[in-house]
Formats: sequence, C-alpha cells, structure tokens
Amino acid sequence: MQPSGIISLTTDFGLRNPYVGQMKGAILRRNPAVRLVDLSHTVARQDIAEAAIVLHSSYAFFPSDTVHLVVVDPGVGSHRRILVAEGDEQIFVAPDNGVLSLLLRDGLLNRVYCVEQRELFAEAISPTFHGRDIMGPVAATLAGGLALAAVGSESSLASCVCLDLPVARVSETKVEGEVLQIDHFGNIRTTICSTDLEHLACPQRCWVQMNEFVIQGISTTYAETGPGKLIALLDSADYLEIAVNMGSAAEQTQCRIGDPVQIDCPK
Amino acid sequence: MQPSGIISLTTDFGLRNPYVGQMKGAILRRNPAVRLVDLSHTVARQDIAEAAIVLHSSYAFFPSDTVHLVVVDPGVGSHRRILVAEGDEQIFVAPDNGVLSLLLRDGLLNRVYCVEQRELFAEAISPTFHGRDIMGPVAATLAGGLALAAVGSESSLASCVCLDLPVARVSETKVEGEVLQIDHFGNIRTTICSTDLEHLACPQRCWVQMNEFVIQGISTTYAETGPGKLIALLDSADYLEIAVNMGSAAEQTQCRIGDPVQIDCPK
Amino acid sequence: MQPSGIISLTTDFGLRNPYVGQMKGAILRRNPAVRLVDLSHTVARQDIAEAAIVLHSSYAFFPSDTVHLVVVDPGVGSHRRILVAEGDEQIFVAPDNGVLSLLLRDGLLNRVYCVEQRELFAEAISPTFHGRDIMGPVAATLAGGLALAAVGSESSLASCVCLDLPVARVSETKVEGEVLQIDHFGNIRTTICSTDLEHLACPQRCWVQMNEFVIQGISTTYAETGPGKLIALLDSADYLEIAVNMGSAAEQTQCRIGDPVQIDCPK
Repeated sequence: MQPSGIISLTTDFGLRNPYVGQMKGAILRRNPAVRLVDLSHTVARQDIAEAAIVLHSSYAFFPSDTVHLVVVDPGVGSHRRILVAEGDEQIFVAPDNGVLSLLLRDGLLNRVYCVEQRELFAEAISPTFHGRDIMGPVAATLAGGLALAAVGSESSLASCVCLDLPVARVSETKVEGEVLQIDHFGNIRTTICSTDLEHLACPQRCWVQMNEFVIQGISTTYAETGPGKLIALLDSADYLEIAVNMGSAAEQTQCRIGDPVQIDCPK
Repeated sequence: MQPSGIISLTTDFGLRNPYVGQMKGAILRRNPAVRLVDLSHTVARQDIAEAAIVLHSSYAFFPSDTVHLVVVDPGVGSHRRILVAEGDEQIFVAPDNGVLSLLLRDGLLNRVYCVEQRELFAEAISPTFHGRDIMGPVAATLAGGLALAAVGSESSLASCVCLDLPVARVSETKVEGEVLQIDHFGNIRTTICSTDLEHLACPQRCWVQMNEFVIQGISTTYAETGPGKLIALLDSADYLEIAVNMGSAAEQTQCRIGDPVQIDCPK
Repeated sequence: MQPSGIISLTTDFGLRNPYVGQMKGAILRRNPAVRLVDLSHTVARQDIAEAAIVLHSSYAFFPSDTVHLVVVDPGVGSHRRILVAEGDEQIFVAPDNGVLSLLLRDGLLNRVYCVEQRELFAEAISPTFHGRDIMGPVAATLAGGLALAAVGSESSLASCVCLDLPVARVSETKVEGEVLQIDHFGNIRTTICSTDLEHLACPQRCWVQMNEFVIQGISTTYAETGPGKLIALLDSADYLEIAVNMGSAAEQTQCRIGDPVQIDCPK
C-alpha cells in the first residue's frame, strides 16, 4: 500500500488547551513528513456516538490511504483495546469503544488489528493521554507506510465494540426518525438518510413533520424557498436536514436532539 | 505562472462541525501536495461583507500566487456564478456574491473567469456544499498550476457582484465614519482608513469622538497610554482603531457596530 | 544545526479574527517550505503566565530544532526586547516579557539573542503586530536553518524577564499548592508537580483536600473510580490534577483558580 502521508484528526479535546498541538508534535516527532488535517476537535466531551458520525460522514472525502486518527477516549489508561482498522481504501486508528460503529454497521471495514507493539509508542507514556503517546505515534508510522499487521495481532471485526445508533423506521408510506444533531448554521440533521427515502413511492409529494412544524416536499437547495422559510432537504452527508434559508432552523423551531421527525408520503 | 502550492481558506463554517475538514480532504484528494492555511472560519454566518473585509485585509501577507478560497455562500446550489479572479499577484476562488467587493472597489483585480469545467469538480456534487465539491477541487487544481483560463469563460469585472460597504466621509477638518468590527481583544475597528487621515492638516492634534468618549490624538502603540486608558491608533490593517491598553475598549465603551465615530482636526 | 522546518505557534489571538492566518501567511512568504503547528491561540488575552505554562508543558513533544513562536505581547511596539533562545534541543522566539519564565526557572535554556537585524523583518512593520511583521518572519528564517547568532547580539539569560509563578510548598508530610488552571474537560490542574510528591513518604496513602472535598490516594487513570467520582492523579504534563471520571470536576466542585489544594501524607 502506497502511503498518503496524511493523517486526519478527530478528538473531543476542544480548542482551549494545547492537547491537540502536543499530539501533533508527537506525531511529527515520529514522522516529520506527515501532513495533518483537523477534522473536528469539538466533538462533545466523551461523546463516542458523535465521533462515530463525524468519522463516517467525512472519511471518504480524503485521499486513499489517509490515516484517520480518532481520540475520543474516556477509557484511556484502562484495559480497552486500541485498534487499527482498514477498509474502503482508508486506515483508522482509534480506541475500541464504538467510534468505528458506523463503519462496522455498514460493512466498510475489511480487517482490524490490536495495537500492541511497544516500540511504536512514545518512550514515556502518560496513563491519561494515549492519543499523544500511543495512537499518535502509531498513526504517524502507518502514514509513513508501515504494514498494518506490524502493529499487533489481527482481531475479528465481530469482537469490536459497536454501539446501536438511532436509525429511522421505514415503511412504504412513512419514515419515522428523530433529530440527530444541530450544526453551526442551526441546520437540523435527522436520523433519516437518503437511502430511507428510496423506499417512498414519491418523495417529492411527501410531508415532513417535526413537532408542530410541517414542511411540504423535499427540496434540493436552500435558495428554493424565501429567506426565513423552513425547508427540508438532503444535507451534504446525505441525511435529511431541516433548515431555514438565510436563518437558523434550530432557533426558529426550538427543537431538541431526539425530537421525533416523521415523513408521510401518499402512495 | 509559478504556483505557490498554498491555499488560504476563509469560511463561515465555524469550528463545531467537520465541514472545514471535509473540504480540506477534498482539496488534498485532488492535489495531495497542496498546503492549507486557515484564514478564518468564524466569519458570521452568511456575512458576505465580513468575508470581504477579512480577505481584503489579509491576502497581501501571503506568498505570490497563493490561491485564496472564500466560501461564504448562502446562495449555494442556486444560479449564482462561481468565480476565479486574478490580481495583485494572487488568485481568488469565490462565489459571485460580493465577497470580492473590496478588491473590485480598489481596482486590485485584473481578470475574472466563470468556473464551468465540470471535470474539475468532484464526481458527486452536493447541492448544499459547493465549497467541498466544486470550489475546493478547483482551488486545488489552480494551486497545482492550472491556467486560470482553463476553468471556464472569461467574464468582465463590471459584471461581478459588488457590495457598497460603508466608507468614511472626509473633509479638510473632519472625518466621519462608524464602528465596523470588534475583535477578540475588544479593539474597535472603524470604517476610517489611514488614507482618510492623509486629508487632515494635522492628525497628531486631532480629537477622536465615539459616543460620549473623546480621545486626544492618534497614537502609534498600545503602550503609549497607561493601562485601562482609551487610545486611538491605526491597526495592523490600516484602519483607525479605538483600543484600551491591557483592556477591552468594547467592554469599556459598550459601543455597537454602526455607532458613529468622528475625527475633528483644527486647521 | 539541522533545521526541522517546523514552527509551533502559541498566541492569545483567539479564533475569531484572521490574525493567526495573516501571521502564517507572512511566515510562508518568508519561507514557503516551513510547516506550521498550532499549539494554542486561546491563551487568555495578555496572560503571559498561561503562555509560559502552555509552552513549558508542550515543547518537548515536538521534533528537535522545532522553532516555538510565542506571541502574547501586550507591550508590542514599546521598547520590550524580542528574544531568540535555544535550549533542550529546541528554539524559542518570543517577546522578553516572561513567557520564557518556566524555561529559565528550570535551567532549560543555553543561550539567548536579541532580535535586531532589520533585514529579517517584513518590509512594512505595523507597530501593533510584531508577530506578523517581525517575530513570524524571524521564526521562518530560523526554521530554514539560519544560525541563531545572525538575528542580533547575544544577551545574558539573567537579563531576561522572569515571572514568579506560583509553586507548591513541600514538607515531609504535607504539600500545599493551589488551583492553577481548569481545562476543556473540567479537569483541575494544580500547582503541585510530580517532583513535589517525591518528597512524600508514601504518596499512595495520602489525602488530597481542596475546599470541602477530600480524595483518598493518588490514582493513575480516570477509569479507576466509578463515573461521577472525584479522583486525584498526575496529568499528562505531570501536574497533580483533580478530575471526575466521565464528568467535570470543575462543575462538580465549583472551584476557582487560586483555591488552596493540600496533600497530607502520614509518615
């Protein structure tokens, strides 16, 4: 495998402390040629499900053989395993706590290894910062072309922790989901995916309902309605999104994570 | 033209979601050698004027032939054009919505092209994320040395959207402007520029007035007054700034964007 | 000295304005081959002590000969000196205002020079942004391999500004410190360091007290207690930290910077 030399970084470290910078320093110390791309450092603290969604909706935009390093790791220092996985032409380094759940659910991973080779780690290892002292240096070495099998013993995909993340319930005339996330623009991402809509007889003629709000039809772009109007469309990661042209749907609807969202579609 | 291989990024994506990271991934997928520099991702949502100021006050510090990618794009997916422009030894990629206004106003652009060549885009294009699927890949290719004319047909500078941004009114004894922005330090940027002060007979002996606050003279550095004192000086982008040494002028004066600022200068 | 070509950046510029991006542009303009790593841009405004702690706890994770650029510079434009220092296989560029205090205190620096060579600076110098116009370009040139002595005259380490930062008081049965910082996770960093604990007869059997909260023993990992329980451990920079497994110790204890922390240890 030809290494890309690129590492993407997803953490819950936030932007206030030098933890991300320290981890990047440790990566460059191991492999000064590597190139680093921040995917997100504002995953909610210890929110494994959010990290899983960020990774799943983002990795495919990177060059082949990018190493995706995910450090949302509340179990740091305990006996949880550290994994290196390979699939869909990408490499993943993460604790075995569920951050790979959506890749596992969708059958995107081919092989997984347990990180065990002590000589790949930093010399001194803090029991509270394996991102900097173990996972970062391992990712750096993989980005330099190390064979995955060199990190430790192969494991089975079935042995990896896999969370049950909320999915939509689909019938021929109805899709029932819920509010999944709210983004920086106030756009409301739901658990309903584009594949869920394929089951509907006529998505153009459906009604989207969330709390007391009802939206007619699924649009393509924000600009299809007037400013300030609610609109439903597929977002850039193929989730059904409720948005407001030139405004914030979250502010306008005061919705909360988990609120029910329903699509009704006549036959 | 010798490419710099550098792309600067200015967006309103914020820091909470992986949108910036996805766009960087898409850029590197097209051109893995490119180097990425964040200029700002905290432009207020859909605030084209702020993006125009960020770009105008920052681009000249970069190496020649840097590609400046600006994605503040409320009209994404509509019929607004996507532009590639060249001027002042730099390249600009942006939607045709006014983010290039200050470059146009100051006559800094030489040529402009419409982005049309479909083979430069990503294979799949989300109608809500042209930064990732169109502008990012185009910028990546330009940073690799593609001739600007290869992106599409040339257009006229006069055809580009140009916003009227607030400017100061200048006479021999007076300059009238307003509060333009407030920065992270609480420094107050006004619409008055260093060139507006050239018209004054004696800037050193002037009075700067904002609301009930009056400041004598225009200083050079923050440290010229005691801690906690209001001071007027030219900021690092040559705008007149009202500041407080070791403190926040915005907190101290409780001013708001648009408040009038006046300089009176005896003959 | 073989240059690493890497510059780490520590500032109080925040994430809202394009100042960091402008400084990076200016660095790349001087040396397009340099690689930039953000250490922190969210040091509290003008907080020299915080910058000193960030630098001291982070620099050693970077490759040898990294240039660490620190721009927390309330005296910008005044007569404060700009320093280039060398020690512990790293290079530091910073104003002479105390940001190097902890390196000086621990005897980590070997030599220090005053930045004086005008031809290393940008052509135009804003009196309010020496990070962009002086320190950035100097760091860029050093990262390209310039000898330190070429920046200006050598100075004495004793002449550099050195702040008295709070340290713990240590006896055979007791360590007295205080709350130093609170991080993104709500973990409470104290002024007590791992070296302070070496003096205790039996650290495992000690009691840690902060305000009305008492914690038995010093643990190794967060996962050693149940979720929601207070725990004391050494953090990833070897400071004593008070934390909560899967929670925020700062929220749970409502502590403040400067609150006393005491360790009692029976003989």
